Amino acid sequence: MRILVIGGVAGGMSAAARARRLNEQAEIIVFEKGKYVSFANCGLPYHVGGEIEQDSYLLLHSPASLKAELDLDVRTEHEVISIDREAQSVLVATPDGTETFTYDALVLSPGADAIVPPIPGVDLPQVTHLRTVDEARELAARTADAKRAVVMGAGFIGLETAEAFRHRGLEVTLVELAPQVLPPLAPEMSALVEKELRSHGVDVRTGVAATGIREGGDDAAVTVTLGDGAEVPADIVVMSVGVRPNSALAGEAGLELTDRGAIVVDSLQRTSDPHIWAAGDAIAVRHGVTGQVGPVPLAGPANRQGRRAADSIMGRVDEAQPVLGTAIVRAFGLTAAMTGASPRMLDAAGIDYFVVHTHPGNHAGYFPGSQILHLMGVFSPEGKLLGAQAVGPDGADKRIDVLATALRAGFDVDDIAELELAYAPPFGSAKDPVNMLGFLAQNVLNGTTKVWRFQDLDWARENALLLDVRSEREYAMGHLPEAMNLPHTHIREYIEGVKQLAAGRPVRVLCASGVRSYYAHRVLAQHGLDSATLDGGMFTLVEAVPGLELATGAFQPAHA
Amino acid sequence: MRILVIGGVAGGMSAAARARRLNEQAEIIVFEKGKYVSFANCGLPYHVGGEIEQDSYLLLHSPASLKAELDLDVRTEHEVISIDREAQSVLVATPDGTETFTYDALVLSPGADAIVPPIPGVDLPQVTHLRTVDEARELAARTADAKRAVVMGAGFIGLETAEAFRHRGLEVTLVELAPQVLPPLAPEMSALVEKELRSHGVDVRTGVAATGIREGGDDAAVTVTLGDGAEVPADIVVMSVGVRPNSALAGEAGLELTDRGAIVVDSLQRTSDPHIWAAGDAIAVRHGVTGQVGPVPLAGPANRQGRRAADSIMGRVDEAQPVLGTAIVRAFGLTAAMTGASPRMLDAAGIDYFVVHTHPGNHAGYFPGSQILHLMGVFSPEGKLLGAQAVGPDGADKRIDVLATALRAGFDVDDIAELELAYAPPFGSAKDPVNMLGFLAQNVLNGTTKVWRFQDLDWARENALLLDVRSEREYAMGHLPEAMNLPHTHIREYIEGVKQLAAGRPVRVLCASGVRSYYAHRVLAQHGLDSATLDGGMFTLVEAVPGLELATGAFQPAHA
Repeated sequence: MRILVIGGVAGGMSAAARARRLNEQAEIIVFEKGKYVSFANCGLPYHVGGEIEQDSYLLLHSPASLKAELDLDVRTEHEVISIDREAQSVLVATPDGTETFTYDALVLSPGADAIVPPIPGVDLPQVTHLRTVDEARELAARTADAKRAVVMGAGFIGLETAEAFRHRGLEVTLVELAPQVLPPLAPEMSALVEKELRSHGVDVRTGVAATGIREGGDDAAVTVTLGDGAEVPADIVVMSVGVRPNSALAGEAGLELTDRGAIVVDSLQRTSDPHIWAAGDAIAVRHGVTGQVGPVPLAGPANRQGRRAADSIMGRVDEAQPVLGTAIVRAFGLTAAMTGASPRMLDAAGIDYFVVHTHPGNHAGYFPGSQILHLMGVFSPEGKLLGAQAVGPDGADKRIDVLATALRAGFDVDDIAELELAYAPPFGSAKDPVNMLGFLAQNVLNGTTKVWRFQDLDWARENALLLDVRSEREYAMGHLPEAMNLPHTHIREYIEGVKQLAAGRPVRVLCASGVRSYYAHRVLAQHGLDSATLDGGMFTLVEAVPGLELATGAFQPAHA
Repeated sequence: MRILVIGGVAGGMSAAARARRLNEQAEIIVFEKGKYVSFANCGLPYHVGGEIEQDSYLLLHSPASLKAELDLDVRTEHEVISIDREAQSVLVATPDGTETFTYDALVLSPGADAIVPPIPGVDLPQVTHLRTVDEARELAARTADAKRAVVMGAGFIGLETAEAFRHRGLEVTLVELAPQVLPPLAPEMSALVEKELRSHGVDVRTGVAATGIREGGDDAAVTVTLGDGAEVPADIVVMSVGVRPNSALAGEAGLELTDRGAIVVDSLQRTSDPHIWAAGDAIAVRHGVTGQVGPVPLAGPANRQGRRAADSIMGRVDEAQPVLGTAIVRAFGLTAAMTGASPRMLDAAGIDYFVVHTHPGNHAGYFPGSQILHLMGVFSPEGKLLGAQAVGPDGADKRIDVLATALRAGFDVDDIAELELAYAPPFGSAKDPVNMLGFLAQNVLNGTTKVWRFQDLDWARENALLLDVRSEREYAMGHLPEAMNLPHTHIREYIEGVKQLAAGRPVRVLCASGVRSYYAHRVLAQHGLDSATLDGGMFTLVEAVPGLELATGAFQPAHA
């Protein structure tokens, strides 16, 4: 039996290694068009930034080590140029000319190609991608002399690259066409990351694209022109605006592709040809929440798809589960992580949902070093978890991993409220942030809590009594100009006054994070007022409403 | 409506607060026999050690703050001395004499009492517990003059207390009757924690109990005598040998108790009296894996039980799920965490299982700071997760939280292998340690991997060819004297030699962690040998077999 694998990184190498462990007799040949196999793709930005000092750390295996360990025949700088499905063979461009190889099973793991925007100057030598070990090495070397860098695209790799350049002391401009960095995040979560980037000196330009790059400029090698007319000088330009499935070979061979060019596979990674399997960034997967089918270029799924392809070739059944898009990125001192569907994805898919925001400590507040964790949950109208996002200096990874597991389990608000997570003061709280998210969503779902949201701000300003129940000191430091102040501990004492001031209007309560306003809201609601508590409190509001103007100073009652 | 709550810490205070949020009109009175309510029980050892500097941090609320925030009537130093179920009233010893209060609903959250071993000297003034804020304060103060401490009991709080005293510079002896520290852990996991304790100067004495304490001794206030005749001088002795449900009041009122004295409740926290609910360390809960019923004194469940009791009183249905016993402790630079059933619990319950051990990095090995995480999974013969334990300097909390969620979901090996967790190099691996545990268990379950275990060592030494497939350097640094060395990358080359040396015997392969021996095992098995790979490798073996003697030096083939 001969197995050919096209692509020697995550999906392809997982398939080859697993195939060997299952079958000692098979001949397994891996073709990789690049110079390296099994390299640490996700580590490239950290080598540029110097955190991973040795480039050798990025090279997890060599053809020699894979031969010795797994008896794999790995051929680098071998590019497969066509597949003859009839003959079950591939034509390969090798350093010594072309050669034909037949196969019993073929695994495609060609990955994705960087999208190159069609603008003038993208072929200048200062413009590069960060997709290969050589590009990482070259960029790391160039940081020694360069002063300014422009990174196009503020997705995961764009952010990591911008941070890498800052570590090297470069001035960095980060350009993103979307109105926010990290487009998969909800805007109010993304705003936290943008602040972190700015506070570490990254010049963030959102809602704008580069229109051209020309040589020379203000003491720099090139000048990048943006759609708003701005000109940004740079010695290095890195393109990180996205990827598309590298499926030309598959398409030319007549394998079924999606409209957008991803390779179609079944739940055992088999393509439309029963002798050909596929894995990784080039294939289409089904999203576990929205059901939408398309590529999800993530390392974890790619590795498991490769492993599954080998299982399938060997006659084992290990059915794929839909992909949740669980992802994470470090941005200086913050971590941003997410799983499942975002509100934007659900809007696009026409799926109903509700959102809750909470801002607990990463661990018990009385234990030193507690830091705020911004956590968002997205639930179906029946209370089923649909997605979650977390941003914070510590503990975001843990909560998103727990919620990714809960999402896979089909958990609802009750299940999440009842999760039994590990608690000791250095690690969490007796009511973990994940439990709190569940409690909150339970309360919203069963009507214990009526919430108002940042989207309702204009309406509330015009039609409601805005009641800020934080302390006088917090209020004085910055509040909505329309809001009156009544600390939550005085709500019962002044309930008649609130009724009088409301004068039949709804009362919209707010505090810092949503806890105290929930307490106050419960009192008001039980006194017959049309009351609601601001989901996520001022923490969420100020991130969700850019440029929100706050007044300062103590509350002055009208009669004073 | 009047609700009385007995006990003003985790369960009781959660019940009172939730009841108020649901019902503004109810009269809610909380009786606490101690001086403080709502204090940070789990923070006490950290105040003793000085990490939580201010004792005020331990006091999360006061009667005044609970009055202002939640209109609760909290009475400290009020001990309920009897319940008249007929009259629906309680008799309370107050600082000003006894008083009777009637109730519509009564919540019992009396907690647990420290077990005091019946040995001479336990009433000496140097002997104390660490259960209250005052005890924590007093211990913190006494560390200024004390030189030596003995901590009785190496459970969670015992470990935290021992660490606290070391932080204060005291000599510490930790005495545990069980043959290991942290008895809920499997011995091979516990051994890692014991090493950490010893490496930080804690004198650990396991398998022995104190038989008496007497005044005076070797330049110390008291001398503790152990069952093995050892005498340990000490200025402070802390008893932390366990707790028992404080259910005397409930028992005298005729409420149903278990054989061992825990209060019986239904899934809505209701006791055998329809007007009385109970929560926290005094109640019996059902274990989610073994089905055994008994107290599980943990803060997380206590809080949720209190909340549920209030829901139930208000007519809401929020059914309890069985308890998994998820727990965690920091021991100097290590974290030990667990969820579900341990092998010992399953043995006691007569439930079949199999165990796998793995030792991955907490995050990608090529990223700086990767540290080993020791992870153990326990599965049913059908592959369902039954429990997990983790020990390591970083990332143990995250993996146990994920596995606690998976356990609640009823996940099996396939589900765990397929979990989609957040990966970027600082946070995890494309194949997360949790996925690896799933892969490993899948392979064992479907026969891809045949394992041998540390329990088989004696058998293997006598009956098998022991094949150590680590590098020559690793082998030379320490190996089983009977083991021959053949690095895994040479296994195919010397396959005939292995067959010859095996001479019909089984081959039992081992390496450091179990990865390379798995690769070698697959080669040997496919060449027709009765081969098996050591579960958990040398890492697990050396912890599981205390005093295991290793030889050093290069392998000398018999014919050399």
